[in-house]
Amino acid sequence: MTESVRHQCRVRVYIEDTDTGGIVYYVNYLKFMERARTELLRELGFEQQRIKQQGWLFVVHSLESRYRQPARLDDELLIKTGIQRQSRASLVFDQQLFRASDQRLLCEALVKVAMVDSETMKPVSIPPHLAQLLGRYQLATD
Amino acid sequence: MTESVRHQCRVRVYIEDTDTGGIVYYVNYLKFMERARTELLRELGFEQQRIKQQGWLFVVHSLESRYRQPARLDDELLIKTGIQRQSRASLVFDQQLFRASDQRLLCEALVKVAMVDSETMKPVSIPPHLAQLLGRYQLATD
Amino acid sequence: MTESVRHQCRVRVYIEDTDTGGIVYYVNYLKFMERARTELLRELGFEQQRIKQQGWLFVVHSLESRYRQPARLDDELLIKTGIQRQSRASLVFDQQLFRASDQRLLCEALVKVAMVDSETMKPVSIPPHLAQLLGRYQLATD
Amino acid sequence: MTESVRHQCRVRVYIEDTDTGGIVYYVNYLKFMERARTELLRELGFEQQRIKQQGWLFVVHSLESRYRQPARLDDELLIKTGIQRQSRASLVFDQQLFRASDQRLLCEALVKVAMVDSETMKPVSIPPHLAQLLGRYQLATD
Repeated sequence: MTESVRHQCRVRVYIEDTDTGGIVYYVNYLKFMERARTELLRELGFEQQRIKQQGWLFVVHSLESRYRQPARLDDELLIKTGIQRQSRASLVFDQQLFRASDQRLLCEALVKVAMVDSETMKPVSIPPHLAQLLGRYQLATD
Repeated sequence: MTESVRHQCRVRVYIEDTDTGGIVYYVNYLKFMERARTELLRELGFEQQRIKQQGWLFVVHSLESRYRQPARLDDELLIKTGIQRQSRASLVFDQQLFRASDQRLLCEALVKVAMVDSETMKPVSIPPHLAQLLGRYQLATD
Repeated sequence: MTESVRHQCRVRVYIEDTDTGGIVYYVNYLKFMERARTELLRELGFEQQRIKQQGWLFVVHSLESRYRQPARLDDELLIKTGIQRQSRASLVFDQQLFRASDQRLLCEALVKVAMVDSETMKPVSIPPHLAQLLGRYQLATD
Repeated sequence: MTESVRHQCRVRVYIEDTDTGGIVYYVNYLKFMERARTELLRELGFEQQRIKQQGWLFVVHSLESRYRQPARLDDELLIKTGIQRQSRASLVFDQQLFRASDQRLLCEALVKVAMVDSETMKPVSIPPHLAQLLGRYQLATD
């Protein structure tokens, strides 16, 4: 039995991220989560530019998110990212966003991402080398 | 039997909305959808500032979105908004975003919004006057 | 002697535009001003996509902006745009942003925009047809 | 004679920062520069929330920026910030933004920031303790 490992990424909340309610504008959590997915791919050796140069593009197919508590200006956030499901041409990322100071869960999302040909926008297979590396963050199922 | 009526709102795509893939950055569709909800409330006489001054706040509780086709620079978008479900302190908006020129569905979302006290962040009842007005956009169920 | 005419464009302030100070995040006024320049070009028959398809790109070379009073949620803004200076390959837009309700000047900017080849990024001449149409918004000098 | 020291801050370019031209949307450099000013203040012990709790607010009064070369997706940027001028109630930050990999200057800005009372929005004096700490980044004049 292997322990599930989630990728970790830290993000700081700046004024640009907040809204007139005094909290992070809820749409911006999805930006933070994309930054985390990008860092996960970068650590596996797949920068966005490299992916793009090979004629591939990751596009978001669908997402579900749930907001529990708001983040505020100056907060440091910790994003934990695992892979819930991986198929030939798509991935479902399971992401949790915490306030770093007290490890409070603020929001969470499931984000389904598909790999497509950047010209035709048709689905293509995730290259085996990348697919294998992504296995590192596969979440254990019960 | 009454016909369902959806609120309609038009939005233009500017450079600020696009990303390096040449399409609208997917997170920004959620901004467009919030603009549409804001216009729906404004037309019912409930500007955001008025809501805020009364000590209420609408917060997004959760959402699901699905992306079908990308919008591009200069596109005019049409957002159709109905209410799928309305309870004492929350609403589920059902929103569809089309390219105006060919009426092609580009993405859609269900957005659950809760009304809270802006101080305590505890749920409060949607005032009856507003609840009744919102009924206008209630989608017919099968 | 001809009277100067400024292009007019209206923009609404949404939650996405505000920050935790309860006002429009100052960087976002520059987005509003770009929307106004885009609408000015569109009305002259030059949509961004058309410009791009011809292998041209307008890039911002430099800008100066001054903030006088903040805009707030729900405000309708009026942006008045003229051309202060026009040369072979660049333009200086003179833009003023007002609160529509009381015509109060909130901020203003001078934005120098250069036309470049979208491949080489080298300056190219503004096509004579567009240059002439832009003359309509040339501000009278003293 | 003292050597001028500039505060240094690193920022990564993500998809959210780019536009359809394949480069960083020019308005976003101003966000990066504000992040750098925020980090400078944080290192001096003045987080934004602390400033706000004391009833102060830093507001941008005016700015000038010049764009030399574009940043692209995945670039790491280095922002060097000094203080060009400091008066009783305002500061002029002199900021330079470089591509970290080759130390190429991409853009630069002068940003005048005023301290105001967060209620009345009237100018207030920068507290002596902070004013003194800021002296650390005062740029030497010729």
